[in-house]
Amino acid sequence: MAIASGNTLLPSVIQRISQAVGPLGLITDARDMEPYVVDWRRIYRGNTPAVVRPANVREIAAVVKICAETRTPIVPQGGNTGMSGASVPRLDAGEIVISLARMNRIVDIDLLNNTMTAESGCVLAALQQAASDADRLFPLSLGGEGSCQIGGNLSTNAGGVNVLRYGNTRDLILGLEVVLPDGRIWNGLRGLRKDNTGYDLKHLFIGAEGTLGIISAAVLKLYPRPRSTATAWAAVPRPEAALQLLSLLKEHCGDRVTAFELISRNCLDLVLRHIPGTRDPFSSAHVWYVLAELSDSHEGDAVRKDLELALATAMERGLVSDAVIAGNQAQSQALWHMRESIPEAARAESGMVYRHDVAVPVSRVPAFIKETQAALEQRFPGVYIICFGHLGDGNLHYNAFIPGRNRDDAAARDARDVAQTVYDIVQRFEGSISAEHGIGLYKVAELKRYKDPLEIELMRTVKRALDPQGIMNPGKVL
Amino acid sequence: MAIASGNTLLPSVIQRISQAVGPLGLITDARDMEPYVVDWRRIYRGNTPAVVRPANVREIAAVVKICAETRTPIVPQGGNTGMSGASVPRLDAGEIVISLARMNRIVDIDLLNNTMTAESGCVLAALQQAASDADRLFPLSLGGEGSCQIGGNLSTNAGGVNVLRYGNTRDLILGLEVVLPDGRIWNGLRGLRKDNTGYDLKHLFIGAEGTLGIISAAVLKLYPRPRSTATAWAAVPRPEAALQLLSLLKEHCGDRVTAFELISRNCLDLVLRHIPGTRDPFSSAHVWYVLAELSDSHEGDAVRKDLELALATAMERGLVSDAVIAGNQAQSQALWHMRESIPEAARAESGMVYRHDVAVPVSRVPAFIKETQAALEQRFPGVYIICFGHLGDGNLHYNAFIPGRNRDDAAARDARDVAQTVYDIVQRFEGSISAEHGIGLYKVAELKRYKDPLEIELMRTVKRALDPQGIMNPGKVL
Repeated sequence: MAIASGNTLLPSVIQRISQAVGPLGLITDARDMEPYVVDWRRIYRGNTPAVVRPANVREIAAVVKICAETRTPIVPQGGNTGMSGASVPRLDAGEIVISLARMNRIVDIDLLNNTMTAESGCVLAALQQAASDADRLFPLSLGGEGSCQIGGNLSTNAGGVNVLRYGNTRDLILGLEVVLPDGRIWNGLRGLRKDNTGYDLKHLFIGAEGTLGIISAAVLKLYPRPRSTATAWAAVPRPEAALQLLSLLKEHCGDRVTAFELISRNCLDLVLRHIPGTRDPFSSAHVWYVLAELSDSHEGDAVRKDLELALATAMERGLVSDAVIAGNQAQSQALWHMRESIPEAARAESGMVYRHDVAVPVSRVPAFIKETQAALEQRFPGVYIICFGHLGDGNLHYNAFIPGRNRDDAAARDARDVAQTVYDIVQRFEGSISAEHGIGLYKVAELKRYKDPLEIELMRTVKRALDPQGIMNPGKVL
Repeated sequence: MAIASGNTLLPSVIQRISQAVGPLGLITDARDMEPYVVDWRRIYRGNTPAVVRPANVREIAAVVKICAETRTPIVPQGGNTGMSGASVPRLDAGEIVISLARMNRIVDIDLLNNTMTAESGCVLAALQQAASDADRLFPLSLGGEGSCQIGGNLSTNAGGVNVLRYGNTRDLILGLEVVLPDGRIWNGLRGLRKDNTGYDLKHLFIGAEGTLGIISAAVLKLYPRPRSTATAWAAVPRPEAALQLLSLLKEHCGDRVTAFELISRNCLDLVLRHIPGTRDPFSSAHVWYVLAELSDSHEGDAVRKDLELALATAMERGLVSDAVIAGNQAQSQALWHMRESIPEAARAESGMVYRHDVAVPVSRVPAFIKETQAALEQRFPGVYIICFGHLGDGNLHYNAFIPGRNRDDAAARDARDVAQTVYDIVQRFEGSISAEHGIGLYKVAELKRYKDPLEIELMRTVKRALDPQGIMNPGKVL
């Protein structure tokens, strides 16, 4: 990789950083830096004069202090699995990458306080495992859990499949430690369930995509481990019926409803076509499906019976046309595998897929689906909709193939016309153009278009106040 | 009341405000203003040139705009039931009061989205009732619910008895509408479960005690209504045992554990002495008690059986020495009445009571209780400790009577020596000196003493950025 003109640093800056972090903490070889400069979806390829890998918070602070003094811009990076390009440097912007990967210690597990204190570089799956080993649950669960890091989850306020029951990452946090843009360390690593001593600063840094500081550690909430689970795959005649099934389940089973995913037939077709070993749970095709899961801290088959009863009631009411309940964990995993393989199956399909990660109020999902499909079909005849997502959160992954366009076609890569059709409707439904994937570089232009200008101004005001030099992840979000 | 020199406004300002809100919206008569200038605990008595009662958000905005132009300071006020004096004007500071009381409309209930949109002046009990009428639960519940307003609950991030299960007020909110210090209206009234489009601004205003803007409306989360409840009053030998009982309950019953209150014998003695109609549930005295409640969206007696089983297990393990489970709702209410009467009983006791609303990590509550009692007994011989609170949240109301001091004794009213003894230990336990009551005027000095100076600086930075003129509730919190 050629180091371009804008991508150099004074040797003295690199030297100072090198002194701060030692030889293990600095990468400057272009080949070794490659994984740090390309985003997970391979949309963005930037470059950087150096990748810094601090071993502890003091090293981060020392590096940030040097950057603040020299006005060197910084891109904090976790597992680099984000969907919006927030974690990679831009091209020729002279941005150094600070990777949290070496900071992967679990500092403490407090069983009676139900908390786990962990450094930001901990891989999510390792935290899930540590919680499980301690007979607890850390409920954050998402596709990238094998490689994403908790610091990145925090910085993007990651969602996933358990939000319905446990909330987003923001809701799973009690305290944070943050290195501020001037290199000072804010120690907010408190494990308190209640603390009304002034502004709750942690919420500024959660979901800020690294633009306000570097989260170096967090106190995470733990939950009782579920001891029984029941998973169903149900065919529903239309999204309205799915919504009424959700309502029925919540009414009778309350928070036992852990996940509630909506899946269109098109998604299942893609999975059956491209993912080996999958099979249709039913003998005939249906237009819509729901994957629902209940879980409980009680042992036994009560949740399974609850689910059976709810599905039977739903069938009587015409809300469900067919249903299967997993008889064991392997069957449950097979059902989840189909749901989780949809993105991979969509990538395997030839052609250009336009992805949208949107949310609307749960009650408005059916109308949103109807209107958006009609609008896209009118504008792009033959469009093939891949609609699935977390219905319980009002969050749809609403994707579209458009015939005649393919990945190598430069014009087709400009997705603005498709996105605008979808987002205009999202806006009319008072929804979000980025439910869980954040803004990063990917949606900066859309944010300006769809966000209330006053809200953008407030965000800028906060950004200027906390990072007056603008060195923290510049160009992202705002 | 005499209008003091610092407490006047140019007649033209009053006139402009009067034009903005009409005759129903303005009070300037000293007698009529009385309820607005004295705080609930009657610690603070201020004065004001005018109490403004806008009828809608546009009127608030118009008034704030006039205040911003004329640098007139503003005190937003809800039900004026706060414990820390945040909602009353200071003496002779020329602060106008903006009361939200007339803005008490429930704008919308969306059953499928499980949300309720309400103006800030809605009384909490009215919101609970509206949710219940719609077969839903709005779980915020606290002593002042009959007169406090949701805007005040939001501004103080109120806690209460259901935090263990449902979180603080902050956790019950999806969206906000806020009038900013320059009079512009930020419409963040979104009913979305997921929205990662930039900084989550609502968390700035929640818990800010009116120092960053005026919350005018909110989208509240609704939950399935519990259909069965079981309440127990149990004697435990020591706080450690209470903590292990909580752990046992959570392990087996998960989120069915809705409340878990710790009560010392001294509290029960006060209640039995001062609250008519109360009686000791047990024939002999115990040093510590727990009031625990389970609830479930299922009907039937399963939660009661769960509770019985858990208590039986706890007895076998020596964690519980005696226990009674309420046989019906009246018995449950009688148990809760004892818990909720503790503050009133303490007020009825002659002498001076020093109150502390503190939190530490749940796991450290027993050690905190032990150390604090020892320290107070050493410093104030004969001290009588009234310790109760939300053990499940690590939140104690840790109060002390000191013999020989009484309310009319001016020196005794200076509680700094007592508070310092308690808060020094709170700090050592990495706790909070204000778990749910906020800072207001009451704890401004303590905040400076105990909060990390960097955190105070960050708070000031945010304050300056959003309210550069400093007109929003000056002197409170910071």
